[in-house]
Amino acid sequence: MSTKPSIPKGTRDFSPSEVVKRNYIIDVIQRDFERFGFQPIETPSFENSETLMGKYGEEGDRLIFKILNSGDYLRKADPDALKAQDSAALTGQISEKALRYDLTVPFARYVVQHQNEITLPFKRYQIQPVWRADRPQKGRFREFYQCDADVVGSRSLWQEVEFVQLYDSVFTHLNLRNTVIKMNNRKLLSGIAEVIGAEDKLIDFTVALDKLDKIGEEKVKTEMREKGISEAAIAKLEPLFHITGTVSEKIKTLRELLATSETGLQGMDEMEFIVETIAELELKSATLEIDVTLARGLNYYTGAIFEVSAPEEVKMGSIGGGGRYDDLTGIFGLKDISGVGISFGLDRIYLVMEELGLFPKTVLEGTRALFVNFGEAEAKYAMRAVSALRDEGISVDMYPDPAKMGKQMSYADKRDIPFVVLTGVSEMESGTYTLKNMKSGEQQQVDIDQLVRVLK
Amino acid sequence: MSTKPSIPKGTRDFSPSEVVKRNYIIDVIQRDFERFGFQPIETPSFENSETLMGKYGEEGDRLIFKILNSGDYLRKADPDALKAQDSAALTGQISEKALRYDLTVPFARYVVQHQNEITLPFKRYQIQPVWRADRPQKGRFREFYQCDADVVGSRSLWQEVEFVQLYDSVFTHLNLRNTVIKMNNRKLLSGIAEVIGAEDKLIDFTVALDKLDKIGEEKVKTEMREKGISEAAIAKLEPLFHITGTVSEKIKTLRELLATSETGLQGMDEMEFIVETIAELELKSATLEIDVTLARGLNYYTGAIFEVSAPEEVKMGSIGGGGRYDDLTGIFGLKDISGVGISFGLDRIYLVMEELGLFPKTVLEGTRALFVNFGEAEAKYAMRAVSALRDEGISVDMYPDPAKMGKQMSYADKRDIPFVVLTGVSEMESGTYTLKNMKSGEQQQVDIDQLVRVLK
Repeated sequence: MSTKPSIPKGTRDFSPSEVVKRNYIIDVIQRDFERFGFQPIETPSFENSETLMGKYGEEGDRLIFKILNSGDYLRKADPDALKAQDSAALTGQISEKALRYDLTVPFARYVVQHQNEITLPFKRYQIQPVWRADRPQKGRFREFYQCDADVVGSRSLWQEVEFVQLYDSVFTHLNLRNTVIKMNNRKLLSGIAEVIGAEDKLIDFTVALDKLDKIGEEKVKTEMREKGISEAAIAKLEPLFHITGTVSEKIKTLRELLATSETGLQGMDEMEFIVETIAELELKSATLEIDVTLARGLNYYTGAIFEVSAPEEVKMGSIGGGGRYDDLTGIFGLKDISGVGISFGLDRIYLVMEELGLFPKTVLEGTRALFVNFGEAEAKYAMRAVSALRDEGISVDMYPDPAKMGKQMSYADKRDIPFVVLTGVSEMESGTYTLKNMKSGEQQQVDIDQLVRVLK
Repeated sequence: MSTKPSIPKGTRDFSPSEVVKRNYIIDVIQRDFERFGFQPIETPSFENSETLMGKYGEEGDRLIFKILNSGDYLRKADPDALKAQDSAALTGQISEKALRYDLTVPFARYVVQHQNEITLPFKRYQIQPVWRADRPQKGRFREFYQCDADVVGSRSLWQEVEFVQLYDSVFTHLNLRNTVIKMNNRKLLSGIAEVIGAEDKLIDFTVALDKLDKIGEEKVKTEMREKGISEAAIAKLEPLFHITGTVSEKIKTLRELLATSETGLQGMDEMEFIVETIAELELKSATLEIDVTLARGLNYYTGAIFEVSAPEEVKMGSIGGGGRYDDLTGIFGLKDISGVGISFGLDRIYLVMEELGLFPKTVLEGTRALFVNFGEAEAKYAMRAVSALRDEGISVDMYPDPAKMGKQMSYADKRDIPFVVLTGVSEMESGTYTLKNMKSGEQQQVDIDQLVRVLK
């Protein structure tokens, strides 16, 4: 092969410094998941197609990567579908497996399949890649990690309270301060639709409202009109467009608007419990806000809806989201199990951390010292110290060949190794090591204990 | 869907306790990789088919999972291939991507693609899943993790020495003592073939020799005869079948046998350097042995060949392996880059650790305490303590509903949570917590500081 090799579009190689920084974020998330009582599970990268197909809508079905059956996969294919070159008809005949599209459906499948092994409420977290045949673009990849925490089997609003705390805790531990946790509630949106007499237009109405930030009040109203929402209904919505003030003031406005909707008021009760409890318990660095325009995944969520925004100075949009979905496992035949969960957007958090310079320097500290190789006897002497330092948990390396000094120093430099250790005949005789600081150029002669102390 | 959902054969769900134990092994391996100066990279789960096809032999090509192109994938397919239902001819037309089959070929691709960003010698590690459409059987899966460390760009035998130390270090840190690191050398095998005049039968000869342990001397000789190796040649091999004694005695026997082969003696020089250096530097818990019957991946390796056996009392076979392969990156057009690397068999190490009871108890320690929920006011009081404990890095949980006491206690029990904390009206009044040890049944009234101390 003479052309330079490449990788499929929408996928990525991660270099050492990228892996280290990604793992730093994942470790922080994982540690908090565990502190909050979540337990890890892992599911296979590919599922039986029937587990995934039909769960994400028509668009989702198209974006699922299908795996070709092994062996003579055409043997049992329908000759008519082949003759007609009918891709859609053939897929199910030549492919029985598909790559995971998200972590939620495999989790629902897991809960149903293992229902006799787990205890409800079951708090699980899962950090694994997912794959989508989406058109790749800036910040959108065909392979990316999801970091999900969900609880199934409890309708308690304490779960929602804990998820707000969990977001706050993770972003505080990442030193990513001033995130905004936006909250809405499906019942509140249903209530508004009911109050304005547009119950049958809930989706159209929320999709339009969701764009308020981007396109402004007038265009939202135009879109609503186009979708057949009446002028009278839009007039009743007026308070929504000008909802301001403190969280309590917003709640008051919304309660007035929703006074005649039982569902809407129930949504308000839920929101109020969460808001008040969080106010009492206090967040460390995030702010919890009510955002009635938030409609993400509405088809799916039945109660609270969450979305987290990065600090305002970074233009990044959502870095996490989630909500409550009743009947998560119903698709696999296990009815009436409520679920609620949140997700962290690893790729976007990475970009925000990079932009704000939030990765601690220690994260990027790799190998601490390179031992220069002066020949076989010297290398053996050096290797004893290398082994002793590694036993102390210190990352050190020896240059493998007795190459020219300049070459070895330049290697240490290129790998950003902060110290080199020289072990020539005089060091061997005195049982010492010459430690050179690559930045300052300073040199000192030390014994093994001092070497451990400086490098640790 | 009314049937209970399932997962594709050869794949696995991992329960919380399995994930925790797997991660324990991975963490130990990763920490040692880093101490030894290896840097992590990650490559995409799927590669362009042309990157993988033809790299693992015909059998390998068959076992690679292919991904169906998205959209109307049949549109451009050859109608004749379709009409003939010719699977082999069609595959390349409807599939352009394939799942990673191992970590070595993607690594070679990475080195070539990123040659201007990396500094040689490049020490990388990679811990990611791979997929093979193998017939599933006990201990063989279609999705499994590989844990690889490789160096490219150095022919120094110090790399081999370090890999022996690395195996020893990882297995010592896992408390898996008495592993046997078996070593052979491709040059030594070539030398033997040369000496007995069967150079053209190197593969047949080594494949037969590899079975010595399993089928015994006589059957190995029979197989050699069947492959056309002469009686005279087999007679010359006699010393190989009865090679015993210390490592130095074995080396002596082999040197005599190989006296007329330059290649063979070069292999012996390499083996001897590694054996002697390791003897001087000393291993912690493993033993290094010479095993001339070891032929794993012979087509591939050009120098040292390694394989690690679990301690004798466990019948498990190889738990790791590796070797040196010159010209790793030649397949992608970058010539003359030597590589050497080793791999850890996560699944088998897991089984060995399980069988020998080597997982530390602390690994399975999950949530430390469950706060009982007595109602809204009590739950708010409890949640303050829950948050404080989590801030201290302690995993605690509150039961989400004010359910009956018995139900909450039984939940703690099923989740193996060692403590419950009771926060009723009297505790709220006195600012204390009643801490109950689930094992002993003992109860004590404590303040928040004592709570932290006991649970930490």
